[in-house]
Amino acid sequence: MSPCAPRLDFMSDNCAGAAPEIAAAVMSVLDGRARSYGSDDVTLAARATLRDLFDAPAADVFLVPTGTAANALALASVCPPWGAIYAAGSAHLDVDECGAPTFFTGGATLRLLDHADGLIDPAVLATALRRGRVGDVHAVQPAAISIAQISELGAAYTPRHVHALTDMAHDAGLFCHMDGARFANAVAHAGCAPADMTWRAGIDVLSLGATKNGALGAEAVVIFDPDLARDMGFRRKRAGHLLSKMRVMSTQIVTMFGSDLWLRLAGQANDAASRLAAGLAKVPGATVTNRVDGNMVFARLDADMDAALISAGARYARRSERDGSVRARLVTAFDTQSRDVDAFLDVARSRARP
Amino acid sequence: MSPCAPRLDFMSDNCAGAAPEIAAAVMSVLDGRARSYGSDDVTLAARATLRDLFDAPAADVFLVPTGTAANALALASVCPPWGAIYAAGSAHLDVDECGAPTFFTGGATLRLLDHADGLIDPAVLATALRRGRVGDVHAVQPAAISIAQISELGAAYTPRHVHALTDMAHDAGLFCHMDGARFANAVAHAGCAPADMTWRAGIDVLSLGATKNGALGAEAVVIFDPDLARDMGFRRKRAGHLLSKMRVMSTQIVTMFGSDLWLRLAGQANDAASRLAAGLAKVPGATVTNRVDGNMVFARLDADMDAALISAGARYARRSERDGSVRARLVTAFDTQSRDVDAFLDVARSRARP
Amino acid sequence: MSPCAPRLDFMSDNCAGAAPEIAAAVMSVLDGRARSYGSDDVTLAARATLRDLFDAPAADVFLVPTGTAANALALASVCPPWGAIYAAGSAHLDVDECGAPTFFTGGATLRLLDHADGLIDPAVLATALRRGRVGDVHAVQPAAISIAQISELGAAYTPRHVHALTDMAHDAGLFCHMDGARFANAVAHAGCAPADMTWRAGIDVLSLGATKNGALGAEAVVIFDPDLARDMGFRRKRAGHLLSKMRVMSTQIVTMFGSDLWLRLAGQANDAASRLAAGLAKVPGATVTNRVDGNMVFARLDADMDAALISAGARYARRSERDGSVRARLVTAFDTQSRDVDAFLDVARSRARP
Amino acid sequence: MSPCAPRLDFMSDNCAGAAPEIAAAVMSVLDGRARSYGSDDVTLAARATLRDLFDAPAADVFLVPTGTAANALALASVCPPWGAIYAAGSAHLDVDECGAPTFFTGGATLRLLDHADGLIDPAVLATALRRGRVGDVHAVQPAAISIAQISELGAAYTPRHVHALTDMAHDAGLFCHMDGARFANAVAHAGCAPADMTWRAGIDVLSLGATKNGALGAEAVVIFDPDLARDMGFRRKRAGHLLSKMRVMSTQIVTMFGSDLWLRLAGQANDAASRLAAGLAKVPGATVTNRVDGNMVFARLDADMDAALISAGARYARRSERDGSVRARLVTAFDTQSRDVDAFLDVARSRARP
Repeated sequence: MSPCAPRLDFMSDNCAGAAPEIAAAVMSVLDGRARSYGSDDVTLAARATLRDLFDAPAADVFLVPTGTAANALALASVCPPWGAIYAAGSAHLDVDECGAPTFFTGGATLRLLDHADGLIDPAVLATALRRGRVGDVHAVQPAAISIAQISELGAAYTPRHVHALTDMAHDAGLFCHMDGARFANAVAHAGCAPADMTWRAGIDVLSLGATKNGALGAEAVVIFDPDLARDMGFRRKRAGHLLSKMRVMSTQIVTMFGSDLWLRLAGQANDAASRLAAGLAKVPGATVTNRVDGNMVFARLDADMDAALISAGARYARRSERDGSVRARLVTAFDTQSRDVDAFLDVARSRARP
Repeated sequence: MSPCAPRLDFMSDNCAGAAPEIAAAVMSVLDGRARSYGSDDVTLAARATLRDLFDAPAADVFLVPTGTAANALALASVCPPWGAIYAAGSAHLDVDECGAPTFFTGGATLRLLDHADGLIDPAVLATALRRGRVGDVHAVQPAAISIAQISELGAAYTPRHVHALTDMAHDAGLFCHMDGARFANAVAHAGCAPADMTWRAGIDVLSLGATKNGALGAEAVVIFDPDLARDMGFRRKRAGHLLSKMRVMSTQIVTMFGSDLWLRLAGQANDAASRLAAGLAKVPGATVTNRVDGNMVFARLDADMDAALISAGARYARRSERDGSVRARLVTAFDTQSRDVDAFLDVARSRARP
Repeated sequence: MSPCAPRLDFMSDNCAGAAPEIAAAVMSVLDGRARSYGSDDVTLAARATLRDLFDAPAADVFLVPTGTAANALALASVCPPWGAIYAAGSAHLDVDECGAPTFFTGGATLRLLDHADGLIDPAVLATALRRGRVGDVHAVQPAAISIAQISELGAAYTPRHVHALTDMAHDAGLFCHMDGARFANAVAHAGCAPADMTWRAGIDVLSLGATKNGALGAEAVVIFDPDLARDMGFRRKRAGHLLSKMRVMSTQIVTMFGSDLWLRLAGQANDAASRLAAGLAKVPGATVTNRVDGNMVFARLDADMDAALISAGARYARRSERDGSVRARLVTAFDTQSRDVDAFLDVARSRARP
Repeated sequence: MSPCAPRLDFMSDNCAGAAPEIAAAVMSVLDGRARSYGSDDVTLAARATLRDLFDAPAADVFLVPTGTAANALALASVCPPWGAIYAAGSAHLDVDECGAPTFFTGGATLRLLDHADGLIDPAVLATALRRGRVGDVHAVQPAAISIAQISELGAAYTPRHVHALTDMAHDAGLFCHMDGARFANAVAHAGCAPADMTWRAGIDVLSLGATKNGALGAEAVVIFDPDLARDMGFRRKRAGHLLSKMRVMSTQIVTMFGSDLWLRLAGQANDAASRLAAGLAKVPGATVTNRVDGNMVFARLDADMDAALISAGARYARRSERDGSVRARLVTAFDTQSRDVDAFLDVARSRARP
């Protein structure tokens, strides 16, 4: 890629590469001998880094290479094979993991809830829990809730919203999982302490993403209640997710979360998304349809605007609607720059309806 | 590590870092946008590279981050939940994967066979297959054999030996898997074509390792019969082993197997092991107990020699025997140098019984 | 139970005992030696009986003791671990089997559809199938539909309705399962040939119930396409559902389906339900809410009528509504008699609002 | 069967029918209404009966229709998916359940031990436990032992032998399961209290058989530690083993174990086996090869004696040996009579070598 040309690629933060700081950190651990399978010093440091970050000295930390593995392992620690996990109908768990939560839990059922931009309303959860048939052997048993922060539809929970859900879940005997594939974007948005968004708001287990935010491939399961972590080492190993050269992942976690790099990178992505949304809102023929709390913009585009963008080389997830318009998901990344956004907006404006 | 000090660490090839060529390749793909989840050009190149390497244009290739995942997924493609997999009693599958093959297959049983240095004798397999109770619903059903090349005890199969086993297995309707975590060491030892060691010798599915041989973390499942590959994409995804930034693994495969780098690295490890074994064989108080076909040396050491080595900083896997001697496993790596071996031998000789 | 007192128990057909013909048949096979695990003559006869009944000489038949096992095994024969099964939101599969279909399939996901009285409209299925993301490894894969005949809400599919659904499913590459826990009630209602309701209407696998219709405990999985039956023997055994003294179940199947006993028993239950529904429809304060195609009547009862019925000893499944009324499910059985129904109606009328 | 002809069928106790007392009990519960799914009075009585029998008021009891289900469910209550279960190499669990224990536990591994007539020596268990690698995430984790009483090779443990094994297992943190498919034969042999053979000897979970001893089909999982029973209801239901008309099984349990019927029936089988073994021991050309503690006799028969027995209509499990002799398993049942045994011995004697 020429450093000069603006980038019109808003397909996914998964399509971005790695932040230079992360790349350099990986390079720095590739020489010499280290203990394997996570007994090395870098991995110890990674675990300490996350405990510090979350102000949670008793938390346990397990690194894995993918978000799907992190989610599925996290859920397996809180849900039996005959358990039900309540999640929004938009949840990555259900839509994009090919059944991984069911595989790792040994059979759990996802119970999908109505939602607004991917966020679950406490009243909706309350109704679902009331129908839970606790103790009835004929029914799968309510075991956990899982909320995505930010949601797959771009919205963020407030700590208070999280708390309302977890209180309700805990009262009913359920555990609370947060899918934090884009946790950094949520915290950058909220400006709160990581602990306030997680265990202080009632989260028991967190899938903490780094990959989408500029790592090569590193995710963490953070278990705030150490009792829940007891079996995780065995679960991770038998799922093939214990890496022999763990330091490669661990150094990414240390570098990402040992300073404010994670917030800086997520902030850049969020700012780019805000700029994009604000720009699109002023373009006739484009409508921003969802709240933009993080790094995703959902919009409806007129057919000719979409065509112009595509022919200009823009990339984004698209779905054609019956009326000819296109529903677009535009994702910014840690390295999206203002001029990338502006170049996209220029094309959009050029084809806007008068 | 000072570049001057010899390295006495023979704990595992998993403890080594990455070859500079591999590290450089990873760095080169970290900038810019690429399609995610393996639709990128580097991943296409990786698949083509392995098809070329094995002279197998119809083969399918799936990259995963760990050898346990590679083995377990490979076996899931050839064994139903009620199937039996015949393997040596020393098999990594059984000893060191915390049940992953059973997890990924949905329930398969390992049937462990007697072996010599980890190699299965055809007569032993024949006896086991005769007892297989094919079609009897009360019994788990013979489905596959799995052989490790090189074995966990350091010995390599010849292509002819492989063929003897696979012929027998195929005649009985079983599929044949090779655990090639150290496949490079075996081919460097045999000096044959990769195809001769695999599909031409009857192997249906191969777990091909790169990590132990100088990659950061990259393994491939190579499926020679494309019919067996049909479900693998789904299996990999639901196991959380489909990496979003796949190019990070793919470039390691391209670099490792797109030239003779893999053979050069494995050759260096093998040479170091040969040198180590030859040296130890001359030291009173040390006995090399197994064949040394690859990069592992198994030896029995007198107690005081072991103590001297440990206090000199040497590292290796150890088990104390009842007679006070120590059974040692010494593993060389792609970056083990002659002077590392010689320094180790010097210490050993200094404490040898007269 | 006194033979004179009418029976006000409409809780479930599962609460009924056994038809005398079935009981006598069981008694007749309990003496002497027979081959175990289904190799006996009575089991051979049971299989032949069902092949004849369905005019399906190539069909395979597997007997199991429960409907949950029959459903879960049947679905396992047509759905992989990463598959999706489309079913009505009211489906017993989802509501009352504690996750058995997921357990037996090794992970399948139920996709719940909107329905009318438990019946799926072809347009609803069409929409669901269009969203199926076939071949996308991130998504669970459409594998099967499952329809209940009669439905859990008392309605029956016509053969034509079944055909409309199965055509659509087959076109999309899915298999078609019928949960026939109350199949006899449906056929008694439709008056068609068993084949017309099943394989001639596109059903690939049927769970055929006998227990609710007067057996002690006997269900059959009838697989019309023998290719799908290949693994079933192993699946049944490893699930612990291969009975050693199989003749006990088999004789029930022979007796039930070897004559028109099954239709006679189901007809009696259906007639009783019709009589009950017709009677209730005339009672002020009671409203029959669903179609009554089989042996189940759903009604809304005024609170005082419900109270009177309960205090008179009536039994039925009840759920209190917010307005004080009670939603009731009344199930008749093979041995429900007119006077039982009439006695119930008498109580209802006595407390009806003027 | 003519009541006059002696019965030469020693194939299996699974081939026998039902004891008249049991058959009559089943008949007596088939009329009228009862609560379904085990909430009925007969099931309550069955549970109370077994609590009394074992002098274990806190024990929990779950009825299932097969021994495979009982074993697999019992093991699932004490072994995680990554657990190892130590059992004799002859164990029914491994040999004849098509992987059911692995299926029900979600992945557990059987570790097979050397044995004498199916009995495990404490020293053998001790060695195995020492190699257990507790806490090592690479290894499946020792979780349970399972012993068969009587063993599949006809021998019975003494309470003291059981205790030696369970002490060792408990010290290592494992749970202890007894496969009591022929528990009645063992207790009839030992003459001890049921509690002395089970929980007082350290057994945590028992699979208690009735089917082989004259029931139509009824087995019980008896969990002596109620904490282990917490999930069993869900496990049983999702495995399809919760019968709707539970009273059919429950009445068999009440009748079998509510009096000394179980001991009387097993005693008759044991006596017949003793008589058979004693008789064979005196016949040239027949050698009884195993201890006969219960209702099974293992013998080596000369080829011509075997041929004579078969042609006289005798039935038993047979395996031809290389020297032309036949290894035979002869199983008596609750209804085997002295004249059946004598008729068999008469044929054997008539062809004995002089």
